[in-house]
Amino acid sequence: MPAANPILLPELRLMLADGDTAGLREVAEELHPATVAEFSEGLDEADIWRLIETVPVERQAEIFPYYPLPRQVELVKEADRAHLGPLLEWMAADNRDDLLRELDPEFVEEILPLVAKAERHDIRMLLSCPEGSAGSLMTTEYASLPADITAGEAIARLRMQAPDSESIYYIYVLDAERHLVGFVSLRDLILAKPTALVADLMQRGVIAVRMDEPQEKVVDLLARFDFIAIPVIDDHARLVGIVTHDDVLDAVRQEATDEAQMSAAITPLGEGYLDAAITSMTWKRGVWLAILFATAAVTAMVLSTWKSPHVWLVAFIPLVIASGGNSGNQSATLVITALSTGDCKLSDWRRILRREFALGLLLGLILAVPGYLLALAYAPTPAQAVVIPATILSVVLIGSLVGSVLPLIFRSIGLDPALMSNPFVSAIVDVVGLVVYMGLALVLLG
Amino acid sequence: MPAANPILLPELRLMLADGDTAGLREVAEELHPATVAEFSEGLDEADIWRLIETVPVERQAEIFPYYPLPRQVELVKEADRAHLGPLLEWMAADNRDDLLRELDPEFVEEILPLVAKAERHDIRMLLSCPEGSAGSLMTTEYASLPADITAGEAIARLRMQAPDSESIYYIYVLDAERHLVGFVSLRDLILAKPTALVADLMQRGVIAVRMDEPQEKVVDLLARFDFIAIPVIDDHARLVGIVTHDDVLDAVRQEATDEAQMSAAITPLGEGYLDAAITSMTWKRGVWLAILFATAAVTAMVLSTWKSPHVWLVAFIPLVIASGGNSGNQSATLVITALSTGDCKLSDWRRILRREFALGLLLGLILAVPGYLLALAYAPTPAQAVVIPATILSVVLIGSLVGSVLPLIFRSIGLDPALMSNPFVSAIVDVVGLVVYMGLALVLLG
Repeated sequence: MPAANPILLPELRLMLADGDTAGLREVAEELHPATVAEFSEGLDEADIWRLIETVPVERQAEIFPYYPLPRQVELVKEADRAHLGPLLEWMAADNRDDLLRELDPEFVEEILPLVAKAERHDIRMLLSCPEGSAGSLMTTEYASLPADITAGEAIARLRMQAPDSESIYYIYVLDAERHLVGFVSLRDLILAKPTALVADLMQRGVIAVRMDEPQEKVVDLLARFDFIAIPVIDDHARLVGIVTHDDVLDAVRQEATDEAQMSAAITPLGEGYLDAAITSMTWKRGVWLAILFATAAVTAMVLSTWKSPHVWLVAFIPLVIASGGNSGNQSATLVITALSTGDCKLSDWRRILRREFALGLLLGLILAVPGYLLALAYAPTPAQAVVIPATILSVVLIGSLVGSVLPLIFRSIGLDPALMSNPFVSAIVDVVGLVVYMGLALVLLG
Repeated sequence: MPAANPILLPELRLMLADGDTAGLREVAEELHPATVAEFSEGLDEADIWRLIETVPVERQAEIFPYYPLPRQVELVKEADRAHLGPLLEWMAADNRDDLLRELDPEFVEEILPLVAKAERHDIRMLLSCPEGSAGSLMTTEYASLPADITAGEAIARLRMQAPDSESIYYIYVLDAERHLVGFVSLRDLILAKPTALVADLMQRGVIAVRMDEPQEKVVDLLARFDFIAIPVIDDHARLVGIVTHDDVLDAVRQEATDEAQMSAAITPLGEGYLDAAITSMTWKRGVWLAILFATAAVTAMVLSTWKSPHVWLVAFIPLVIASGGNSGNQSATLVITALSTGDCKLSDWRRILRREFALGLLLGLILAVPGYLLALAYAPTPAQAVVIPATILSVVLIGSLVGSVLPLIFRSIGLDPALMSNPFVSAIVDVVGLVVYMGLALVLLG
């Protein structure tokens, strides 16, 4: 655990200007790697390398992954090729995988020969896992033991393996073919008699995920069972890696951001808001705005056919469609969050629709009251004013139903339910709401 | 780590009907506590008690927290009072705190005398931490050691403390007044020479949070440094508890759900979608719909003053305000996600506004083109059609600015930026957009 010293960028710049290697080394050596990266992020690439090259490559490999990914890419491009091989070898497998996925594949092929053969195998395996799979989150660094040794021997072996960081706390028991046969925690080993056999201490029937399963499953299992890590196996139940709690936390936070952006009709930025280029932001927003514009164009076409003698109805157009849109957004968001937390499943669709029907009806009735009062102020007669509450009741109900059905449909055809849900629901409800409004006006007012 | 046996509810019901205590005990004893709770959730309260009372109270206390909180409350109400004291004593402090916060305070005062005195002190301290603070997430169960013993002695002491679960992996070094002076991991102790002093092994200047700091700070530190747990101190730097990785993960997931619901103008449900009562859902949605209705009523008042001779303009009302609303939703969501991930801060407001101005202008220009083409189909002359692209450009720009300013204002006055952001932004942009539309029509068409 690190010291929280407030070493600041200006002091680093001063040390660099003075060529104070000892001072730089102290910074890079003594602080937590995350803190070193944070304090030096403001430097240019050459200066960052001057800073971290004051320490051995093992330590460099600890600091490096704490720079933001786009920065790591820049740093790699600036680096001396001869230096890259050892750095990649020492980096934790999951961090290395994250970095290599950001690089140009040709560049990766160019630098891979610089990496030791054993690591190259791990690199290729991890790179072959599709994004969003359990495999793409995993690291190949874990502690493992055979079943036929004692707790005392096990601790002695773990001392020799001395695995990096916290992967020492969960130890997977493997047979000769690396099949995952059991699990034992370092706590179990410490508390056991040194002569007890691992086979007797271990728990069998270990919960694991297959490499190709979606990362949501990893998140759910880890959150449900409060594990530090979860093992990843191949099709033959052989252990290939683990996903650790910190990578799951990062994935959950990233997923929350991506979903929020998607549900507002933005292609997820995948980088910091202030770091994203204006051109890329324009594209990631513009393409969806254009699609939504096309939907909204339908409202113009629908409305242009409307030649009602009741001019006062025009004033209520935005009110009517906003009521439907708001109710639809609420329903869509409730269904999306319920699906993504596992509170409900696709198979619950009947219960969901019943709920949303009841809620839409209730909320529509509640809003119809002020709607009627407002309409009385503009309608020529109280009888004519009834068209407004009738429309509000209908569009709020329609909004609830459209808002809940759309994410269910998206999920059932394999799309992310959050996909531009909110504006898309509004767009549909706008069109349907207008048609209902015009229809009710025709029926009730002639 | 648990077995993943598919024991199912019907089998449990059969065992209960048969009075098969041995079978029930096997289920409650052998499976992971989370799995026991999951499989038995479908039973009524009395049957759940019949199931878990087959095992000792220590084990019951492990299973109990895995039921959803509303269910735990029901179970407590159904329980034999004499049984509650030991159960609460054995429950992990953070889980117990979560449960007690859900109970009626008078009921808590009634059952507290049943709990041993030492636990009562912890319970009162945790209950006194405000919701959303670091203290409200913490547990009082952690491993601690003095600095002046050797690694060998330390491991022997940890064996005696044999703390529950994973709190054994991070050990906090305290002085005689319980001030947090250092940190050592079980890994460090295992890898060190048995004769090495803890004082020489430990890291000083430990990163910690104060009890009253917001839980976001805990999340940020844990995510940044990849810790398993983070220590919580009081105003005198004395250790009072730790927040563990699993509680942070739960908090992050809950926060993501709450924020999504808030941003769609729903008071966070705080429970499962299908579990929430219709009356409570109606209230949590209805109150915001009513507020948004009041804002939308302004659009009706504004529009009712409009007596333009250019009737064709009416058809474009929904299109124009939807364009502004969609752009506003995008900006609001981008700023909210950037603020909540720490990608940008309130002090970046100048950069944010510059970005959104540029983006709003670009996106407005892009949408103005199809807007003009569509207008040509309905406007009497090409010159008159210009009012549509001019309005679209303006409202998209206004949407971007309103959408980015509103979350910044909310944050600056201490409100959650996500608070009903999306529909609220749309509501404001609707009104402003209509005024702009009417104004431009007046200026350009007379």
